[in-house]
Amino acid sequence: MATEIKVIVCGFGRVGREFAKLVHEKAERMRTAYSLDAVIVGIGELNGSLHHTRGLDAAKTADAFERAGSFADHPSLKADWQGLDLIRSAQADVLIETTPTEVRTGEPALSHIREALARGIHVVSANKGPFIRAYRELTGLAREKKVSLKISAAAAAALPTIDVAETCLAGAEILEVEGVLNGTTNFILTRMRTNGRNYEEALAEAQALGIAETDPTLDVEGFDTANKLALITNVCMGADLTPEDVERTGIAGMSLAEVQSASAAGKIMRLVGAARRDEAGRVSARVAPALLPPDHPLAGVEGAEKGITYTSDTMDRVTVVGGKSDPRGAAAALLKDFINIYRHS
Amino acid sequence: MATEIKVIVCGFGRVGREFAKLVHEKAERMRTAYSLDAVIVGIGELNGSLHHTRGLDAAKTADAFERAGSFADHPSLKADWQGLDLIRSAQADVLIETTPTEVRTGEPALSHIREALARGIHVVSANKGPFIRAYRELTGLAREKKVSLKISAAAAAALPTIDVAETCLAGAEILEVEGVLNGTTNFILTRMRTNGRNYEEALAEAQALGIAETDPTLDVEGFDTANKLALITNVCMGADLTPEDVERTGIAGMSLAEVQSASAAGKIMRLVGAARRDEAGRVSARVAPALLPPDHPLAGVEGAEKGITYTSDTMDRVTVVGGKSDPRGAAAALLKDFINIYRHS
Repeated sequence: MATEIKVIVCGFGRVGREFAKLVHEKAERMRTAYSLDAVIVGIGELNGSLHHTRGLDAAKTADAFERAGSFADHPSLKADWQGLDLIRSAQADVLIETTPTEVRTGEPALSHIREALARGIHVVSANKGPFIRAYRELTGLAREKKVSLKISAAAAAALPTIDVAETCLAGAEILEVEGVLNGTTNFILTRMRTNGRNYEEALAEAQALGIAETDPTLDVEGFDTANKLALITNVCMGADLTPEDVERTGIAGMSLAEVQSASAAGKIMRLVGAARRDEAGRVSARVAPALLPPDHPLAGVEGAEKGITYTSDTMDRVTVVGGKSDPRGAAAALLKDFINIYRHS
Repeated sequence: MATEIKVIVCGFGRVGREFAKLVHEKAERMRTAYSLDAVIVGIGELNGSLHHTRGLDAAKTADAFERAGSFADHPSLKADWQGLDLIRSAQADVLIETTPTEVRTGEPALSHIREALARGIHVVSANKGPFIRAYRELTGLAREKKVSLKISAAAAAALPTIDVAETCLAGAEILEVEGVLNGTTNFILTRMRTNGRNYEEALAEAQALGIAETDPTLDVEGFDTANKLALITNVCMGADLTPEDVERTGIAGMSLAEVQSASAAGKIMRLVGAARRDEAGRVSARVAPALLPPDHPLAGVEGAEKGITYTSDTMDRVTVVGGKSDPRGAAAALLKDFINIYRHS
């Protein structure tokens, strides 16, 4: 007997659509393995939202949206509804938040999440912004309302980070986090080291492959790594850092000679985000190119792959590497968070 | 407000005692971070058990037991009680099972676990035996009685394996598991490759360091890896394998020339346990020395360390490496399972 769970998806970009497709594709497994029947009752978009209390055919809707770029004349269209209207009106159990977010303000995701939590709706977010800006507020609100707030996809798509610390290292005190958290910069540094490309060539290659954005600033200046590191550190080490609290050096303009001389000395250069708790209990965090010895567990994280190492008091060093980092990987992370809201261990 | 949880520990060997010490050491953190107050009300041993409804001073008891080798004249001693009597008489919420177990029969742990589950007591086990012998029966019983049955410590001490698959990859279908699951054999092969030791020399070194047993059969013939692989595969891939179903080739007597020629060809030899699902849905498993290419995620798992790689349909390849593998690491794994019974995600 599967429990019906009513779901709203806010933001129907690539990740939101992949989530809708995955819910369709995994419907049978969700029922048999987890006794869950996820029904998407609403999809929120800037130019009008869909709402149907008995459920939308989400996979078909995703395909149609991909073709038309809008919900066009969908029978369930509420042309004047945006995400917030949907959250207020649909009787949902879970909000899946995937809107494009302005990292500086966290909006519009922040308002969506606040509204959902206040209404007792569980939240699963692929958005970093709201948690970078209002982490304590949102977790406090979730606790008060006794609902779940899960952000695996925001931290590093399908690479498990936060849930490893919370579940697999439960009871251990995390003393240090080190992460290769940005695939673009790791790809660039890997190409420089293994193929002798200079920075501009490696960046151009990453852009040609769709790994780097046209404006790569967010990645190459270390902002993305700092955002993820702040998020992970706040959850796993009980810190309360904003990305501005993270000391940050990127890899923009890195000289080939520097990468190669590190390599000649047996070290591997990667952009590492690291947070440590000092003896006074304060957590400090920094992002910078680091020269890893070959036996460091993140030394082998090559190309666009990511990885994270936790050092704890009772379990020593545990490293997780891999995980699909495309929209389908992010959607799979949303789905796992969704399942884990209801799964009893 | 912490919830008091009454705990029985069966088996007071190194792992059981480390667990008792950890409960003491982590009492404050357990209360503040998890709202749990673990009270050890009973300790079961072959030559008499301890029982005190209001709780034993477990850390002190562990120290005393280490000195005396028995509970001697402890005021709470029930001289004629063994584990089973304790489980029947103590009003416990959780059984921590760490008795030395005969892998062939799974006893006495199997009887302990059956009895506890039947009484509605959650079970956390560091023992593989019962799950190798009666996995379906025990999980069925736990489901029927609506209690948790957790076995992280049995699978690979502090290296997270089962919980990564169950939680961090929830919703994904595991298509393949590959693991370097035995520290002793990995240490031997690493020493052969990096230090030019022959098999006998590397084994002797492992024995001198306390990594290998005097009789290394269980490790070097691949039995330990097969046991762990069967366990992990049953939980994570829904298989129902006994260790005898696992094709098995060990590393005993491995020639140095073979390790070195692999190395010269750019491959790294490790003892790998691997399970795959074929197109008909059948799971097959084997343990054998494997030549890993240097970019394989388990290639870097050196010395006595362990690692596991899951390949799934939606998240690709996720690898976990590390984790303390001594009795304290195993105790930390027991503690995390204990916490996760009560932790709401």
